[in-house]
Amino acid sequence: MPEESSFPTLKRLLVGKPIPSHLAHHERLSRVTGLAVLSSDALSSVAYATDFIVATLIVAGTAALGYAIPIGLVIAALLAVVAFSYRQTIYAYPTGGGAYRVAKENIGENAGLTAAASLLVDYTLTVSVSISAGVLAITSAFPSLDVYRVQLCLVFLTLLTLGNLRGIRESGQIFAIPTYFFVVSIFVLIAIGLYHYATGTLTSVAAPVPDSAGTRQLTTLLLLTAFANGCTAMTGVEAVSDGVPAFRPPESKNAAATLVTMAVLAIAMFLGITFLAHAYQVMPTEKESGVSQLGRVMFGTGPVYYLVQAATTLILVLAANTAYADFPRLASIVSRDRFLPRQFMNQGDRLAFSNGILVLSAFAALLMVVFKGDTHALLPLYMIGVFVSFTLSQTGMVIHWRKKRTPGWKTSALVNGFGAVVTGVVLVIVAITKTLEGAWIVLLLIPIIIALCKATRRHYDHVASQLTLRNYTPQRRVHNTVLMPVGGLQRAVVEALRYAETLSDDVRAVYVDVDQSATDQMKKDWETWGGKAKLVILESPFRSVMEPLLEYIEQVENERTDDYVTVILPEFVPARWWQHLLHNQRALLIKGALLFRPNTVVTSVPFHLAK
Amino acid sequence: MPEESSFPTLKRLLVGKPIPSHLAHHERLSRVTGLAVLSSDALSSVAYATDFIVATLIVAGTAALGYAIPIGLVIAALLAVVAFSYRQTIYAYPTGGGAYRVAKENIGENAGLTAAASLLVDYTLTVSVSISAGVLAITSAFPSLDVYRVQLCLVFLTLLTLGNLRGIRESGQIFAIPTYFFVVSIFVLIAIGLYHYATGTLTSVAAPVPDSAGTRQLTTLLLLTAFANGCTAMTGVEAVSDGVPAFRPPESKNAAATLVTMAVLAIAMFLGITFLAHAYQVMPTEKESGVSQLGRVMFGTGPVYYLVQAATTLILVLAANTAYADFPRLASIVSRDRFLPRQFMNQGDRLAFSNGILVLSAFAALLMVVFKGDTHALLPLYMIGVFVSFTLSQTGMVIHWRKKRTPGWKTSALVNGFGAVVTGVVLVIVAITKTLEGAWIVLLLIPIIIALCKATRRHYDHVASQLTLRNYTPQRRVHNTVLMPVGGLQRAVVEALRYAETLSDDVRAVYVDVDQSATDQMKKDWETWGGKAKLVILESPFRSVMEPLLEYIEQVENERTDDYVTVILPEFVPARWWQHLLHNQRALLIKGALLFRPNTVVTSVPFHLAK
Repeated sequence: MPEESSFPTLKRLLVGKPIPSHLAHHERLSRVTGLAVLSSDALSSVAYATDFIVATLIVAGTAALGYAIPIGLVIAALLAVVAFSYRQTIYAYPTGGGAYRVAKENIGENAGLTAAASLLVDYTLTVSVSISAGVLAITSAFPSLDVYRVQLCLVFLTLLTLGNLRGIRESGQIFAIPTYFFVVSIFVLIAIGLYHYATGTLTSVAAPVPDSAGTRQLTTLLLLTAFANGCTAMTGVEAVSDGVPAFRPPESKNAAATLVTMAVLAIAMFLGITFLAHAYQVMPTEKESGVSQLGRVMFGTGPVYYLVQAATTLILVLAANTAYADFPRLASIVSRDRFLPRQFMNQGDRLAFSNGILVLSAFAALLMVVFKGDTHALLPLYMIGVFVSFTLSQTGMVIHWRKKRTPGWKTSALVNGFGAVVTGVVLVIVAITKTLEGAWIVLLLIPIIIALCKATRRHYDHVASQLTLRNYTPQRRVHNTVLMPVGGLQRAVVEALRYAETLSDDVRAVYVDVDQSATDQMKKDWETWGGKAKLVILESPFRSVMEPLLEYIEQVENERTDDYVTVILPEFVPARWWQHLLHNQRALLIKGALLFRPNTVVTSVPFHLAK
Repeated sequence: MPEESSFPTLKRLLVGKPIPSHLAHHERLSRVTGLAVLSSDALSSVAYATDFIVATLIVAGTAALGYAIPIGLVIAALLAVVAFSYRQTIYAYPTGGGAYRVAKENIGENAGLTAAASLLVDYTLTVSVSISAGVLAITSAFPSLDVYRVQLCLVFLTLLTLGNLRGIRESGQIFAIPTYFFVVSIFVLIAIGLYHYATGTLTSVAAPVPDSAGTRQLTTLLLLTAFANGCTAMTGVEAVSDGVPAFRPPESKNAAATLVTMAVLAIAMFLGITFLAHAYQVMPTEKESGVSQLGRVMFGTGPVYYLVQAATTLILVLAANTAYADFPRLASIVSRDRFLPRQFMNQGDRLAFSNGILVLSAFAALLMVVFKGDTHALLPLYMIGVFVSFTLSQTGMVIHWRKKRTPGWKTSALVNGFGAVVTGVVLVIVAITKTLEGAWIVLLLIPIIIALCKATRRHYDHVASQLTLRNYTPQRRVHNTVLMPVGGLQRAVVEALRYAETLSDDVRAVYVDVDQSATDQMKKDWETWGGKAKLVILESPFRSVMEPLLEYIEQVENERTDDYVTVILPEFVPARWWQHLLHNQRALLIKGALLFRPNTVVTSVPFHLAK
């Protein structure tokens, strides 16, 4: 048996080495690594946002695809507005301005909880959608793998879970390579595409038009739906403003520069791909993405094409990974306000984050299995949460400026106010076009989560009021009556008895008489091994052991009012886990029976079995 | 919160009132109730045994069905032989002569364990097969219910489980009505059938001949398979000899008379149904049983037919119920020999039986789900266990007579020897014809169960050798160092501290310094609430709480050799179950970390939350 506790080893294995306080500074992000770590969500969404616009428009026929360009331009403009809005949050909240905090401080508790619930749902969907889209990049390249779609999703999820439990989060460098490779390869793709377009040498994708094409009229609702779907390009913009304190000083300045770089890159890539998708008549399906179709045309189905697909998969998996930093951090902040179980609260080591990671993975896995790893099926659920938190955060900022009235506050308020209106309008459009397609799940889930948060807070408040030391006088209990139920005498019992004798002068072994000859033997053995303890023999007309025991404990408790009753139970600690099944059931029952009894303490004295 | 423990109430609800010792006598069985309680398994098997013969023969064409009559006669003769053999066991083992005991005492431990493993498997299959056949009687009457076959099986299983947990076993009367009603209705059916046959007024069942008919040759193997399948009629014969002590005195005489009555009834019903099945050209399928087809012809599809089907279902469910008495009893006997976990051992109240009931139900449910509640699919697994135990039991009886040499022992040995040979031959036939069809599962399972039993026994023997008081000198430990990790001061901590002070003069509260201002506050509060205890403050360079704590505990243990270390943890006992999720994670971790440490006792001092 281990001389040392087995716990630190297990924890070390699962969650990695602890970080000493004075090292925390060294891990801060530069602009280059910051862009890699915090932008993968925003940048990677260009891999699917255009597809969603095209796939929506096609039901009104190929002619409707022309609307993709103006819709793309509107979305790009919105992205610029939102990025500019968040740039202000970075300067106003240099210690991190997540939507929860901004909404709670400026609007109120309910707004904060709404933002938190939306974000928790959103992070879970980010994991599911990003991994699904990453797997789509693989199955686009290797169509025969499509039947293993859900399995592949779960493999990536498992890798992310284990990596994050061990602490992959710290290494900014490993993010840089796939992120920058993705950005470069997309720009190369766009450049080649534009060159062919300009020189008139383009060959269209020539993908088969789906059966659904032209089955519906081109209505305003359809255009709004295409717009709403394209707004996935805006997800992830908030990540930099949440992570300001992770930057090297000057934190705000570095973060703001990173945010602007990210926005410019995202807008350029999104517009480029959207333009090419139209020019090359891309026709994305749930089995092949638009970027993959473009890649095949530009590079041919050769090594460069496969590299681009690999980079797409990698950045999407990294995008999922950002949720693994965001979800536990938000859960920790919310649980510090006692709205979530304290198991999520970071208390010095990484254990709390492990709980957040496991909860996130469990829900993301559920979504992947239920929606069969299909990004198009998950999409309607995705954006409600994002835009609820956008709108609340921007609205909160407007109130923030009105309260602070720092120089230039009116301009700032105007910028954030515009952002709030814009994201609010998108939210309404998303809600209108998506509710029946599945967004109702999220619209139902958010209030449920809020209610659970409030119930949790209420419970902790009740507990705090029961724990306060104000006006508290402890009961005068000075004596301890130690009882030890015994079924016979053996080494574990005798050792527990010796332990019991160190606790009190009043130790009583309690034996239930179910068989006269066994009782006589017990009395005889007691003379040798009993020591200072007293032997109490109880009658049992019903052959039951438990009931006389419980009655006796009650009787002892009534004997005097100034004592505790301590019940000592020897407990076997087996050498192998399965041996647990062979022991201790009765001890467990006694513990269960005494759990709600006041002033009664049950103590298990371990007896370690060698094999 | 309950003033009294909630345990007895819960137990009462689940397992019923305890039976006082002096009442046990009143519940003994008369011949009439004994037949009802112990014979339902044997009698009910006539509801399906004939079907299995016919369904096997039909693959060789309708002409082959003529062999059903001679096969039926052979089985009837065997049933008489086996019953006569077991009649001797009743007199030789008036305190109950189960196959486990007879084989173990007379042949040896391995034979006993083989019999026990076979019977445990067999009882599980009895539950599955009987309930499935009972549901078949329902779906025969109402074919539209066939799609809910598995669900219906699980409903009956749940009812039996709950009924047995509450103690349905005691009421012999409720068994009598359906058993005797079944017997009477089968005899009425046979009488009407014979009357029509004799008067030449019979109309055949005219069920459609299945597609498989005539697809195979009539081989010896096929005849043996039909015979083996028909031998299901013999299952349950041993039940009376197992239950001798449950009879009113003179126990053996009453039991023997009951056994003979049962055998006569079973043989008459089996032969009658087999004869009619042939005469009326019954063609059982997995959707309609032969008895149901006969019933429709004899009574028309009217109220009498439905009553017969209801009686069939009821007696089959009762047959399953006998396994609920047998399985826990056998498990209890085997665990008394320490071959099964002691949780199965009856120790005065019914709790041990509850464990047996739950295990039996779990495995039976698994079988029903895996084999989709189809009796024909479960059949190949069924009989191996029955005939292994028959053969071992009869062989054991031969050895028993040879040892005892009581007057007339040679005749007795001859009878049992003949029984052993007959059941051994059937066992071989069953093994040959059934192994590939699924009996391999059972042939694999029996040695696995035996191995588990031996591992269990070995473990308990090791434990016993570690627990013996022979040559044992307890360590001299007279002192108790009481440690209490505290994260701050509140009521639960102060109460636990007061408790700790009753245990020892050396009580130390251990506080981990992760934040200077919190530590200062702690020191200040300590002056008010600390009492006799000493405050120890630990540094934590890694912001971790657990590691400095565990290191300090180790350090304290090295301070002196004559003491125990008791770690006191306040533990919240919430008023509602879900609130458990919100508390005590850290306490659990500390407990886990200290579990394997010698001479260290962890004590939780409960703090009861009001809401």
